[in-house]
Amino acid sequence: MRKPVYMDNSATTRVSDEALAAMLPLFREGYGNPSAIYGLGQDAFKALEEARASVAASLGALKSEIFFTSGGTESDNWAVLGAAEQALAKGRHLVASAVEHNAVRRPLQKLESKGYEVTLVAADKAGNVSPEDLESAIRPDTVLVSVIAANNVVGTVQDVPALAAVCRRRKVLFHADAVQAAGHVPVDVRAWGADLVSVSAHKFHGPKGAGALFSKIPRRPESLILGGGQEKGARSGTENVPGAAGMAAALAEAVRNMDRDSARLSSMRDRVIEGALGIGGVILTGDPARRLPGHASFIVEGVRHSALLINALNGMGICVSSGSACSAASKEADHVLAALGYGWEPFASLRVSLSVYNTDEEVDYLLDRLAPAIRKLRLQRAGVKGEDPGGEGHRPRRPASAGQPAF
Amino acid sequence: MRKPVYMDNSATTRVSDEALAAMLPLFREGYGNPSAIYGLGQDAFKALEEARASVAASLGALKSEIFFTSGGTESDNWAVLGAAEQALAKGRHLVASAVEHNAVRRPLQKLESKGYEVTLVAADKAGNVSPEDLESAIRPDTVLVSVIAANNVVGTVQDVPALAAVCRRRKVLFHADAVQAAGHVPVDVRAWGADLVSVSAHKFHGPKGAGALFSKIPRRPESLILGGGQEKGARSGTENVPGAAGMAAALAEAVRNMDRDSARLSSMRDRVIEGALGIGGVILTGDPARRLPGHASFIVEGVRHSALLINALNGMGICVSSGSACSAASKEADHVLAALGYGWEPFASLRVSLSVYNTDEEVDYLLDRLAPAIRKLRLQRAGVKGEDPGGEGHRPRRPASAGQPAF
Repeated sequence: MRKPVYMDNSATTRVSDEALAAMLPLFREGYGNPSAIYGLGQDAFKALEEARASVAASLGALKSEIFFTSGGTESDNWAVLGAAEQALAKGRHLVASAVEHNAVRRPLQKLESKGYEVTLVAADKAGNVSPEDLESAIRPDTVLVSVIAANNVVGTVQDVPALAAVCRRRKVLFHADAVQAAGHVPVDVRAWGADLVSVSAHKFHGPKGAGALFSKIPRRPESLILGGGQEKGARSGTENVPGAAGMAAALAEAVRNMDRDSARLSSMRDRVIEGALGIGGVILTGDPARRLPGHASFIVEGVRHSALLINALNGMGICVSSGSACSAASKEADHVLAALGYGWEPFASLRVSLSVYNTDEEVDYLLDRLAPAIRKLRLQRAGVKGEDPGGEGHRPRRPASAGQPAF
Repeated sequence: MRKPVYMDNSATTRVSDEALAAMLPLFREGYGNPSAIYGLGQDAFKALEEARASVAASLGALKSEIFFTSGGTESDNWAVLGAAEQALAKGRHLVASAVEHNAVRRPLQKLESKGYEVTLVAADKAGNVSPEDLESAIRPDTVLVSVIAANNVVGTVQDVPALAAVCRRRKVLFHADAVQAAGHVPVDVRAWGADLVSVSAHKFHGPKGAGALFSKIPRRPESLILGGGQEKGARSGTENVPGAAGMAAALAEAVRNMDRDSARLSSMRDRVIEGALGIGGVILTGDPARRLPGHASFIVEGVRHSALLINALNGMGICVSSGSACSAASKEADHVLAALGYGWEPFASLRVSLSVYNTDEEVDYLLDRLAPAIRKLRLQRAGVKGEDPGGEGHRPRRPASAGQPAF
C-alpha cells in the first residue's frame, strides 16, 4: 500500500515517536497499578504523576488541577454534566455557543430533557462568539458557560480570555473545550481565566483513549465515573498510565515546537487556502485570521454533496473530510455550518487539516488535483440535472488522471 | 533493578506480547479515525470491527452486542446508571450483592441519593449469593440486578447462570460484573443468560484504558458518554482502536489457553493456600472450590494491619495486596470482608493473585518468606502490647534474612 496524503489531522493524528517511546516501557515492564504500595505500583504512580506535572506545565496549570480521562468527549461530558449537577442549588441554566462539538451539545440536550434550560449564543459568520452576546445570555441562575476554544469544523480560534473574563465578572463557571486547540495554539489556563478546560491526546499526536480535564480547585465538577476513587476521587477506574504518559509527551513536544511548527503549518495552510479560493466558487469558512495553524475549511459551490468531493479526493489517496471526525450519521459538521448561516442551498463542505508530518510536496499534490476534481463534479452535476436528481448512478467515477500519490 | 515477584494480578497485569503486537501498528501507521471514509480510516474501522468480532467470539456474544469503553469501571457505571435511567417507567428499585466492587456500589449509592431504592443481597461466608436470596429481593419495580461474577477481594466465582435464571424468570435485567472473571474462567454470555456483562482489558493482560460492555439487543442502557455518536450512538468519543485491538488479542489468547493455564494456575494457587494455612492462624477467605484459578486470599490473625504484612512482603520484592486494586483510601476490601462477617477484630487481609507469568520458583520464594514474616509481626505485636499501641516506631524492620528475589 502506498502512503496516503493524510490531511485530516483535526479528526485524529499519528502518534509521535516521542509519545510512543514514553508509552512503550509501561506495557510490559512498568505495568504496575498506581494505587499499589509496592515498588512496581509506585513506579507506575511516579510515571502517572510525572505525566500529570508535564500536562499541567504544558497548559499553565497546577499539577493538582489536572485529571486524566479517557479522552476529550469524556472530559467535555464531565465538565458539562458534572458542573450542572454540582451547582443544582444555584440554578438550572447553561450557556454555550451555537457551534459546540457534539461532546458538549449532546450533554446539554440531555440536561434540557431533565428540566434544565440552555441558551445557545450565536456566532458570527466567521465563527466568533462576542463577549457582549455571551454576557447578555448569562442569567442569575446560570451555572456554566461552555465555549469551544478552536472550532473543529471551521477552525476559528475564539478570544477565550475575553469570554472567560465575562464569566469571571458574572461569577459563572467557564468551560473551554480545547480539544482542537491544545497543542496547536497556546493554551494557558491562567491567562485564559478558565475554570474547566478539556483536552484530548489523539488530536496532538498522542494516543487515542487518553484525555484530561483541567479543573480549578475547589470548583471540581461532580464525578462522571464512580468507583475505586482514583484521581483523588474525581475519576475512578485504574489509571491508563501509558495513555497519560503518551499524552504528556505529545503535548510537551507540541508546545516545545509550537512556534516553529505553527509558522510552517500556517504557511502550508495559506497555500491551500490561496489555491482553493483561486478555483472560483469556493468560500473559506471560519475566521481568515484567527484560525488553527493547520486548518483550512471551505464551502465548494456547485457540488451536490460533500461526500462526492471527499470521495474523489480520497480516491486519489488524499485523506480529507467534510468537517467533522465523527460518523457521517451524526452530521456534526451540518449543525455548525447551519449555525454560521450556511446550508440553505446545496453545498459541499471540505476540511483540510495539516500536521507537522505534512510536506510542501503533499500540498502541491492536493492543489494539483483539487481544481480538476471540483470542475469534474460541477460538469457532472450540470450534465445530469433533471435526469435523476437523487440517483446513485451518477456518482463520479475515479478520474482517469488520478492515482495513488507516490509520497 | 531486580525483577519483582509480581503476585497482584487481580490489581492489574502485564500486557501480553500478543496484545502489544496487535496494538503497535495502530499508533503510527494504522492511526486513522474509524469514522472516516478514506482508506486509512476504513482500515482503522476494520481493525476495530475485527477486535469487536474477536471479543464477541471470546465471550459467546454477537458482534453487534459488544460496545467498547475506557475500562471496567466505565462499563459497570454504564450498566448500572444507564439501565436505571432507561427503565424509569418501570420503577426505581435496584438489587445487587453486598460484595460488589465500588464501580457498581458507588453508582448505586448515587442512584439512592436521587431517590432510587437499592437492596443489597447478603452473601454467605464464602462469598456466594444464593438464587433464593436474590429472588426474594426482587420486587415488581426492580429494574436491574447486578452481581459480581468473580469477586476481586476473595476470588469467589458466583453461580452466574443460576442467578441470571432468576432474573430472566422475574423479567429483570441482569448485569454481571465480569471484570475479574473474563479471561480467567469461562464467560459465555449466552450460557450465563446475562443481559449486560462488563469486562476490563488490563485484568487479562490487555492494556489499561480499554474495556467493553456486552449488551443484549434491544436492551441497551442509556448512554453514559455522549457526543459524536460512535459505537452506534451508544458510546461517543473517538474509538481507542489500539486499546480495542490489544484487548481482543489478550482475551483471545487467554481463552485459547484457558484450560492449560487454569490448571497450572490452580495448582500454584493451591500450593499457596496449603502453605499459608499450614502457618496457623491463617484463614482462607472466599470459596475453597469455586474460586478464580490464580486467586488466594486470607485473613491473617494476630497481625494488626494488612499494611504491616503487605509492606513486609513488598520489602522482600513480593508484590501482593490486601484485596483491592484501588487506592488504600477507598477501603475497597473492607466493605467486602465486612459483608462476609470479618472485621470485628484486628486482622490483616492478604491477597495473592497469580498469572501465567508466575513460576513455581516464585511460589516457593513466597512460601519460604510468608511464615517468618507473619511470625515476626505476631511477636512484635505481642512484645509492644500496651507500650505504644498506635505508634509508628514499631513498624517491623525488614527481616535480616530477606533480600530481593533473584528471579
